[in-house]
Amino acid sequence: MKKFQVTFQPSGVRGEVLEGTTILDASRELGVGIESLCGGIKACGKCKVKLVEGHLSPFMDEESTFITEAEKADGYRLGCAAQIKGDVLVFVPEVSLAGKQVVRKAATERAIELNPAIHLYYVELSPPSFQDLRGDLDRLKKGISEKYHLSPLDIDYHVLLKLPRVLRQANWKVTAVIWMEKEILDVKPGRVEDAYGMAIDVGTTTVAAYLCNLRSGEVIATGSMMNPQISYGEDVMSRISYVVANPEDGLEKMNQLIVDGLNRLTRDVSEKCHLSPEDILELTFVGNTVMHHLLLKIDPQYLGVSPFPPVVHQSVNLKARDLGLKVHPSANVYVLPVEAGFVGADNVGVLIAEEPYHQDERVLIIDIGTNGELVMGGRKLLTSSSCATGPALEGATIKFGMRAALGAIERVRIDPQTLEADFKVVDEEYWRSESRSIKAKGICGSGIIDAIAELYRNGIIEKSGRFNPKIQSSRMKTSEGRPEFIIAWQEETSIGKEITITQSDVRNVQLAKGALYAGAKLMMKRLGIERLDKVILAGAFGSYIDKEKAMILGMFPDCDLANVYAVGNAAGDGARIALLNRYKREEADEVAGKIEYMELTIEEDFQREFIEALEFPHLKDPFPHLKGIVREEILQK
Amino acid sequence: MKKFQVTFQPSGVRGEVLEGTTILDASRELGVGIESLCGGIKACGKCKVKLVEGHLSPFMDEESTFITEAEKADGYRLGCAAQIKGDVLVFVPEVSLAGKQVVRKAATERAIELNPAIHLYYVELSPPSFQDLRGDLDRLKKGISEKYHLSPLDIDYHVLLKLPRVLRQANWKVTAVIWMEKEILDVKPGRVEDAYGMAIDVGTTTVAAYLCNLRSGEVIATGSMMNPQISYGEDVMSRISYVVANPEDGLEKMNQLIVDGLNRLTRDVSEKCHLSPEDILELTFVGNTVMHHLLLKIDPQYLGVSPFPPVVHQSVNLKARDLGLKVHPSANVYVLPVEAGFVGADNVGVLIAEEPYHQDERVLIIDIGTNGELVMGGRKLLTSSSCATGPALEGATIKFGMRAALGAIERVRIDPQTLEADFKVVDEEYWRSESRSIKAKGICGSGIIDAIAELYRNGIIEKSGRFNPKIQSSRMKTSEGRPEFIIAWQEETSIGKEITITQSDVRNVQLAKGALYAGAKLMMKRLGIERLDKVILAGAFGSYIDKEKAMILGMFPDCDLANVYAVGNAAGDGARIALLNRYKREEADEVAGKIEYMELTIEEDFQREFIEALEFPHLKDPFPHLKGIVREEILQK
Repeated sequence: MKKFQVTFQPSGVRGEVLEGTTILDASRELGVGIESLCGGIKACGKCKVKLVEGHLSPFMDEESTFITEAEKADGYRLGCAAQIKGDVLVFVPEVSLAGKQVVRKAATERAIELNPAIHLYYVELSPPSFQDLRGDLDRLKKGISEKYHLSPLDIDYHVLLKLPRVLRQANWKVTAVIWMEKEILDVKPGRVEDAYGMAIDVGTTTVAAYLCNLRSGEVIATGSMMNPQISYGEDVMSRISYVVANPEDGLEKMNQLIVDGLNRLTRDVSEKCHLSPEDILELTFVGNTVMHHLLLKIDPQYLGVSPFPPVVHQSVNLKARDLGLKVHPSANVYVLPVEAGFVGADNVGVLIAEEPYHQDERVLIIDIGTNGELVMGGRKLLTSSSCATGPALEGATIKFGMRAALGAIERVRIDPQTLEADFKVVDEEYWRSESRSIKAKGICGSGIIDAIAELYRNGIIEKSGRFNPKIQSSRMKTSEGRPEFIIAWQEETSIGKEITITQSDVRNVQLAKGALYAGAKLMMKRLGIERLDKVILAGAFGSYIDKEKAMILGMFPDCDLANVYAVGNAAGDGARIALLNRYKREEADEVAGKIEYMELTIEEDFQREFIEALEFPHLKDPFPHLKGIVREEILQK
Repeated sequence: MKKFQVTFQPSGVRGEVLEGTTILDASRELGVGIESLCGGIKACGKCKVKLVEGHLSPFMDEESTFITEAEKADGYRLGCAAQIKGDVLVFVPEVSLAGKQVVRKAATERAIELNPAIHLYYVELSPPSFQDLRGDLDRLKKGISEKYHLSPLDIDYHVLLKLPRVLRQANWKVTAVIWMEKEILDVKPGRVEDAYGMAIDVGTTTVAAYLCNLRSGEVIATGSMMNPQISYGEDVMSRISYVVANPEDGLEKMNQLIVDGLNRLTRDVSEKCHLSPEDILELTFVGNTVMHHLLLKIDPQYLGVSPFPPVVHQSVNLKARDLGLKVHPSANVYVLPVEAGFVGADNVGVLIAEEPYHQDERVLIIDIGTNGELVMGGRKLLTSSSCATGPALEGATIKFGMRAALGAIERVRIDPQTLEADFKVVDEEYWRSESRSIKAKGICGSGIIDAIAELYRNGIIEKSGRFNPKIQSSRMKTSEGRPEFIIAWQEETSIGKEITITQSDVRNVQLAKGALYAGAKLMMKRLGIERLDKVILAGAFGSYIDKEKAMILGMFPDCDLANVYAVGNAAGDGARIALLNRYKREEADEVAGKIEYMELTIEEDFQREFIEALEFPHLKDPFPHLKGIVREEILQK
């Protein structure tokens, strides 16, 4: 087959690709980050590029959903649709460049009881003699069993290979590294006191790693990266679709991407504290069920088909080397159990961190990731469910939506008197009104929630979600006959145009919050709960969400605002807890086995509850600081 | 570096090698079989070749030990000494060609109680539904535990990967392959009844494999091969030396040779019964301690240094894939325990086959391989020891010695009246006196024992081992001033010269049998045994040794000849027993742990006993059929 040269601007990256390769695939091959939220199925329109020179395949009908006639005339195409048919020069507009994610998964301060799976045992052995001809291993085992009463002990094959050399070099004084009091994972010369492990949260979007000293429990380094699978689709369904559509190597490729990424991540994080990946003796993982399966190279296709059963529920222990992870050659991997096809090991992580099963209150835990996972109950009974919030709360399906990357608007406020908007972008200290050098590129999940809550409480949108036609404001505009609200003026953005909230954006957020609300309502009905005592908002997203705004939108049923908590990345905390305390692993299997999964879509009231939940709730007095003419008008209605 | 072309005649094999490569190394690289009993350290003289054309490095002093002035003038060199310095044409005389070993390790008929580690469990599962959302693995485990009461169960990671596909393809009716009632090694569609395993005896010289049906216990195919490490040295010490002399890759190379060989062997044997190596679910191994270590890629260097401790005594279980063995991806490898540095897993195999620990008699088991291993005792106490018999009984250090390959003399008889010799070669039905087409190439272990026993009982050699100077026979000749006895005339051989037994050959056999005898005597003394009730001769060698001839030579202390048994390859039987009955594995660890190893060389009487044992024993009346003048003369002395 023919090869053609493709050059991407403004980066200048160039290379050869086969005839017929799409622009999006070419960008992946050459390492140019082009956004693709739908996974390249012409459904999101985020991969828009401009042909400057050369030949591409003819314009397709599907492209016109996202590309206007004017843009088309200007050479705009969807990267996932346009195939390369000659040498080409392509311009990637800033709006289509995949941003560098700002990772929001810092380790939370939590008191964790220390009882890791790895312990160190120092022994001094007598060397072999004609009177004592035991083998090296038998000698070591005897030494350990006499001093520490551990037996029987297995030894990892790789340790056996180095054992004779280490014993002699160390003059028969060694420290044995033992996993779960049953397997020797290493033998180190002399007396060693510290051992290291890593807890990893494999999110659909972000992977976060916490390197811990297993003796002190201290987090000594953290790091994170984008999940490299993201270039094959933003959400779990598009990852499954990719595997199904590529039966020969799709699973292999997905697995290799995350494994290679984890190898880079463990190396980078180890280097931060002058360790090597070989120092990592255990890894614990959380992740949703699809990430869990892809990490383990288990075919996720059945997770995409009703009744969505996972291949494995219970926790999995295996050798890191069997996964291709380059850490200590004998290291163990512990993957937390999953609850169901759509309630994964990440949710189990949240549970062992928050322990609702030890609480007398009626608790609702909402874990908002790319998917919404709900847990409700308490000591007596726990139920979980999941709902398709859609990717709106993560920035997809939103006209100017983006991930929480540099330039993303994460906070919005609207002056009730003037209806003027102000915003704050990720990693900037000041609001736009305080620093005119700030430029926005798009709007991320917490910004969208803020914006819509502000629009609602200022009466700009109505309870039904419709833009109030009576509102007169320079911020309001009409695009293709539908109203939009301008959050950032053109001069406040880096994308050469205004950033707005559209009627369709509002509808998408309504669908997401409606699903969460309806789900929680159905669970309350099933459990006979009239009113929640406590709501916990978890998720990397959760720590940045404004709980008051979430309540204004009606993301969850009524609860005293004082009893609503944002706990941050509780899933990652769960991985860390399992790393540092092996008894919590038993607790994890226990709760994952006991929790009842409720499939919301087959509940008969689901449709009705969902439709009722689409409206925004009545504005009531929990918001006494709301002032201004517009609100007064609304409350008088 | 320069490369030169080397051509070997008569095979015509040619290829390029680097300047400075020895002829022996070149022959290995190009796959020409040149004998090398010492492992290429200029100590055995078996690798003699003739330079026909080209340039080699200068003749070395060490070569003159094996190459006469006349041979030197004719272009003869030692293959391990002569380095290639230009394009060369080399002739390999037949005597230096490594013969194709005739493998003598047939499976013995033994009644073995069946209780393999692998069992099959058929289950029918209900498919997932919204009412029953358990994971595939949890579903399978539950199904097995309900029907067969097995739990908790682990699953090999590789099975997990295929589990969802197999369950659905098989419509949820599958057979689980379970190891030791605790680990799922495979899941096969539908109802499967047969499972297969292989027992392997890794000898220093020969590797034998027995493919068994684990349900019936039947041996369904066997096969064997030379241990490919043999080109790096005939005995265990030369293998250790090679590893020590090549610290960067010697161990890796030795291990790779045996692993590659085993992969060919398992494939060949499987094909014999239309199976594939992937059908092999378990492998059991026996071998001496050095073979054991090299198979496991454990550094054997400490086995070569006093007090010769092994790295591991107890049995080892590991995944075949961790050893690089290409059988079923989840297959287990069980390696029998070893007793000591020089009493290996092969001897433990002999023990679980012969069970001396269940006998009230005072038993001596002699396992003659490349090393001599002795076990003595019975129900109450068992002692083992090993003695350096030297390689004489396997054909090395014997002027015309060779392995039991085609053309090797394996039986010798001498007419007491005429002192004429007759012989039989390996794999020929007739004696030479009956079929004149038979040609001998050398003489193997059992032939050497026969020959020397015959020489002794006919008075040709004396009790001291010296050739009797009074004997007048055309069979006697003198070479370099020392007497030799002609076993085969020049026209009866394929090597262009007579095959003889030399004075030095007799001395070497005396050293070997003296070591065995002295070892047994010291053990009897230590155990307070006056007379043995039973002697068992084991080893591939053992089944072909003539027990009467062995007694004439004094290879073991007095015992009623009726109570001397040759049991064949009992080590291989032990591997098969461990494969078919897992309780015997516990027995193996128990006996290996309990048996007392006696280091003979540090016993104070060893030197005296050994020297006393060098003489041949008095000829007595257990041999009433001995007739003839010469014998009468001897008995009158």
